[in-house]
Amino acid sequence: MNYPSKLIEDAVNEIAKLPGIGKKSALRLALHLLKSEKTQTHNLSNSLINLVEKTTYCVACHNISDAEICQICGSHRRDSSILAVVQDSKDVLAIENTSQFQGKYHVLGGIISPIQGIGPQDLNIESLLLRIQSNPEIKEIILALSPTMEGDTTAFYIRKKLKDLSVKISTIARGIPIGGDLEYTDEITLGRSILSRVEF
Amino acid sequence: MNYPSKLIEDAVNEIAKLPGIGKKSALRLALHLLKSEKTQTHNLSNSLINLVEKTTYCVACHNISDAEICQICGSHRRDSSILAVVQDSKDVLAIENTSQFQGKYHVLGGIISPIQGIGPQDLNIESLLLRIQSNPEIKEIILALSPTMEGDTTAFYIRKKLKDLSVKISTIARGIPIGGDLEYTDEITLGRSILSRVEF
Ligand SMILES: [Zn+2]
Ligand SMILES: [Zn+2]
Repeated sequence: MNYPSKLIEDAVNEIAKLPGIGKKSALRLALHLLKSEKTQTHNLSNSLINLVEKTTYCVACHNISDAEICQICGSHRRDSSILAVVQDSKDVLAIENTSQFQGKYHVLGGIISPIQGIGPQDLNIESLLLRIQSNPEIKEIILALSPTMEGDTTAFYIRKKLKDLSVKISTIARGIPIGGDLEYTDEITLGRSILSRVEF
Repeated sequence: MNYPSKLIEDAVNEIAKLPGIGKKSALRLALHLLKSEKTQTHNLSNSLINLVEKTTYCVACHNISDAEICQICGSHRRDSSILAVVQDSKDVLAIENTSQFQGKYHVLGGIISPIQGIGPQDLNIESLLLRIQSNPEIKEIILALSPTMEGDTTAFYIRKKLKDLSVKISTIARGIPIGGDLEYTDEITLGRSILSRVEF
């Protein structure tokens, strides 16, 4: 593609590095920013820089956080006896938006996937064990993983690892379509699947 | 939506101001940047700031440009006897990518649209007249506007304005589907419609 300006070309190339955005969409976005107030671009730019420079991860649950301990782990209103184990921060957001879960979380930071070369040692599984062992108030672990082959593999691995600890292990009910992606599940289905969770 | 971090929330809100990007996509993009190398976000951010702060418009054709006179207007290889009149810079790019047009452009900066309150005085029409009057080498004007009601209205208005000048006026052939958007037209169709342009 020929661009009228090197500045446009640079911007299009950078925008098109984002997932799901092709060169045509990137060009449309660049031209939109050019037509808009400059403050919009400055605000966007600042928010992205702040995001990557200042965001940290909760030392307890590994969720994205503004501080060492995230808002959920630090809240006295949350039930410390129950942990939902999820693949990543997107899943915490999806479950929070159901308003059906009052416990806390443990974010694995991924899922076991031999094809992508992701093994148990790449995930926050060891820290889950340590967290349960050093917090006797934890009574139940809900494995809230997507019902895919990778999700099932990860669930079985964690169940095996936790079998000698005195915690109840459950999984979210399969109201979620098999093969579906947890984060795309509508809030009602996802909320119900947490309420009707089954022992694992 | 509840966000785990104010930083994420700010970034999602800013990204979601872009056209065609909802909150869910914005969140996906924000989390993607968080997972990627920080340099990617810095490069993206810099390219956007440079874009809005340094981009200028060609004083001759009003196309986006890095300099006072754009690459096309400044090129000795382009045919100065023929001008394609287009709605905006996206259309210049679309036509350039057909490689079927060797003339120069005139970018209106919009289209007459009573519903959106855009009248002839809001567009670069007066400067088109002045450009033709002061450049006797201009022999033909191609009205390369989308075949929509607004495009037709604008074409008729310009034809009326130019009727006393000794330039030939043509429009691109209606190989483009009626009601279609010029910038979404495939390169072959758009290229042919320029070659088989008709007097207007
Ligand atoms: Zn936490
Ligand atoms: Zn120019």
